Amino acid sequence: MKNLFILFLLSLSFTSTIISQNEETIDQIIKRSLIDSKGFSWLKELCEIGPRLSGSQNSIKAIKWAESKMKNLGFDSVWLQPVYVPHWERGKLEKAFISSSKKFINKTLTITAFGGSISTPKNGITGRIIEVHSLEEVSKLSDAKGKIIFYNRPFDNSLVSTMEAYGKAVDQRVNGAIEAAKVGAAAVLVRSIQSNFDNNPHTGVMKYAENVTKIPSAAISVIDADFLSDAIKEEPNLEVTIKLDCKTFDDALSYNVIGEIKGTEFPNDILVVGGHFDSLDKGCGAYDDGASCMQSIEAVELFKRLNLKPKRTLRTVLFINEENGLRGAIEYGKYSATSKENHIAAIEADRGAASPRGFYVTTDSLTFQKLQSWLPIMNKSKIDWIRKGSSGADVGQIKNAKALFGYVPDDQRYMDYHHSNNDVLSVVHPREMELGSASMAILLYLISENGL
Amino acid sequence: MKNLFILFLLSLSFTSTIISQNEETIDQIIKRSLIDSKGFSWLKELCEIGPRLSGSQNSIKAIKWAESKMKNLGFDSVWLQPVYVPHWERGKLEKAFISSSKKFINKTLTITAFGGSISTPKNGITGRIIEVHSLEEVSKLSDAKGKIIFYNRPFDNSLVSTMEAYGKAVDQRVNGAIEAAKVGAAAVLVRSIQSNFDNNPHTGVMKYAENVTKIPSAAISVIDADFLSDAIKEEPNLEVTIKLDCKTFDDALSYNVIGEIKGTEFPNDILVVGGHFDSLDKGCGAYDDGASCMQSIEAVELFKRLNLKPKRTLRTVLFINEENGLRGAIEYGKYSATSKENHIAAIEADRGAASPRGFYVTTDSLTFQKLQSWLPIMNKSKIDWIRKGSSGADVGQIKNAKALFGYVPDDQRYMDYHHSNNDVLSVVHPREMELGSASMAILLYLISENGL
Repeated sequence: MKNLFILFLLSLSFTSTIISQNEETIDQIIKRSLIDSKGFSWLKELCEIGPRLSGSQNSIKAIKWAESKMKNLGFDSVWLQPVYVPHWERGKLEKAFISSSKKFINKTLTITAFGGSISTPKNGITGRIIEVHSLEEVSKLSDAKGKIIFYNRPFDNSLVSTMEAYGKAVDQRVNGAIEAAKVGAAAVLVRSIQSNFDNNPHTGVMKYAENVTKIPSAAISVIDADFLSDAIKEEPNLEVTIKLDCKTFDDALSYNVIGEIKGTEFPNDILVVGGHFDSLDKGCGAYDDGASCMQSIEAVELFKRLNLKPKRTLRTVLFINEENGLRGAIEYGKYSATSKENHIAAIEADRGAASPRGFYVTTDSLTFQKLQSWLPIMNKSKIDWIRKGSSGADVGQIKNAKALFGYVPDDQRYMDYHHSNNDVLSVVHPREMELGSASMAILLYLISENGL
Repeated sequence: MKNLFILFLLSLSFTSTIISQNEETIDQIIKRSLIDSKGFSWLKELCEIGPRLSGSQNSIKAIKWAESKMKNLGFDSVWLQPVYVPHWERGKLEKAFISSSKKFINKTLTITAFGGSISTPKNGITGRIIEVHSLEEVSKLSDAKGKIIFYNRPFDNSLVSTMEAYGKAVDQRVNGAIEAAKVGAAAVLVRSIQSNFDNNPHTGVMKYAENVTKIPSAAISVIDADFLSDAIKEEPNLEVTIKLDCKTFDDALSYNVIGEIKGTEFPNDILVVGGHFDSLDKGCGAYDDGASCMQSIEAVELFKRLNLKPKRTLRTVLFINEENGLRGAIEYGKYSATSKENHIAAIEADRGAASPRGFYVTTDSLTFQKLQSWLPIMNKSKIDWIRKGSSGADVGQIKNAKALFGYVPDDQRYMDYHHSNNDVLSVVHPREMELGSASMAILLYLISENGL
């Protein structure tokens, strides 16, 4: 206990040294982020390209835009890391309707295919609809042959963490088609996974399993899910028709976009900051994860803007294909495992663009203690805490880094937008986003100056 | 130093006791806030009444609505505390335009009178416009007779705290007319004080001084302020015409709305929670301060909903006339100073409705230490810190309480909405607002159970 107290005192004195050394630079990082609002202006340009689904022409356009943007911003090197990614397209037909002899039950339902789903036959699939609330419930169905399984377990809005609520609902989307096919179902509808109540169904990736029949799978809006559930109560043998013409193509060549500023003292020490550059094909992927990608560019570019020479190399990595494959992250992970570079730390930003709250980190306990001593200065950009926790899917593939960070902005609005037509530029607030750029730049600066 | 460490250990053990005793109740408070979203639904009703400027008919409608709402929700007592408040009305005429021989300079300017301003003569005031950036600059003007002073010092977006940036700009609005009149000016335009860039000028209160001529004063939108500044560069002798027909009436009878649940063990110990019920006459005062008033009702009503019997009396106070007089708060302050009740603590909510960040508190150092020991459990609703700081203008009038708190949600969006047509229901996010209700209910619960 005495040692704990000494550590506590040491960390206090260390903190004051760090603060006095770096305070002016850190204030400048924050001021310039907020005044110039450059990251937000880049996001506006990116959103004009449109959504960036892996394998799409748009995603390639955006990749070239980002490459050229980082070159124009004066990064020391910018390059593309090639990788093959899944290529799925939604098509033009997404339709579902209830047919009933009771006219007040008849209704067109707003649906949207999940990424990776197969299409229906041209005339659609018509079947009796069976409402369930879990994969387990499906596995116990005695006869689901030719039926349409309707997963209707809602997003749990009683949870403070919207990420946790998402995590508790998403198995219906990811594995719903597999479990339904195992009992002979013909198709799947899943209640849109979202925190708000509207008529914009949220998409996302779904999976098929080997040796299990592939069946079509789509999200139904929460408003229409409630209607459908009521309709089933009124008419237990209700039939629904679904029509989808989405399609999977051969894997397509794509790229991670990488740009860096070389370290002056330890150029072989690499600090990565990144988000995923692919989005779903809804809205423009502003919140998920365009804003974070722009923050990841800006966190490094701020060193150029302020004429700061980092001791260690700062590298922005825009990972491709997080949404439906993680191929970009796996490819970068292979590179980091075999390269002679020394990956010290990596920061992932994939939790939206609201005001900063903290950082999750996976590291050893001494490094964790050191990071805590930086909190008073990191608090300047509204970082209130550093907690042990998962960095994220992309930088999680960098297995040899001393510390993996996940940037955590406020999460309350996130699941209103995520994977839907709601995910557009106007949901991003410039000041909130810019404080995120500053927070990541400050963490890069502290690690670059002081090591870990 | 040893004592400090012992205090540190004691606070740890105290914390764990508090946490185990109260965890279930606190979890219930949070879950019910988020699921039921009642505070948000009341805000919707309140916004349908419209804005609630002190002395207006609408404010009386809203007061009666709140009184009846608290009665219907089962508060033990609900009453109105009468107080006379200023009564000013905007009128229908708000117009400004540039007249120039160069046609490309001619333009109608979007302006809005500040609360309390006198009107112009019917034909308006036309005068040469002089751009300045501070009150000091005005005081040094040699000849401003008949001229219109245009205060154009912008909101400082480089500051992390939008409240601080507001504080640094607001003297132009509050005292601009006094300083301008002292040097003979005929009217004042002030660059709208806001963090975003749009054509909705933000209003707010302005002051006159005894023995200084009253002159009209209005906000000009930030877009038009930039235009006007450019126009002056092009034509230094530029003239502007302003027309306003706002008017001040005799003080009007109004009310604080007060409701309470009696404490079971210490009914004479009072815990106040409140916001200001008046708004400006723009938008519907959803963010400033309607949401906080609904949170203040909900923080107490949650005890009813969860069938919790507070040991101490919980009192919601909706203060009237914070925006232009503080009459309601002063009246309540007089009451608390002379009543035989024991005001233990008061929480003010007047910083918008975004996600919770922390509480400011004014109290003694031992109580401050005790509050810190509650942080781990308060963190459940996203309260990340308790810091020494000002509670707010309203509860600041309660001079005899042991602790005065200011609830602090995230502030990044606040100055986009504040005092403008942007301040409408849609800028309030239900989950963010409800976490605020829960945070205040939890603080009330901890104080009610444990004292201070």
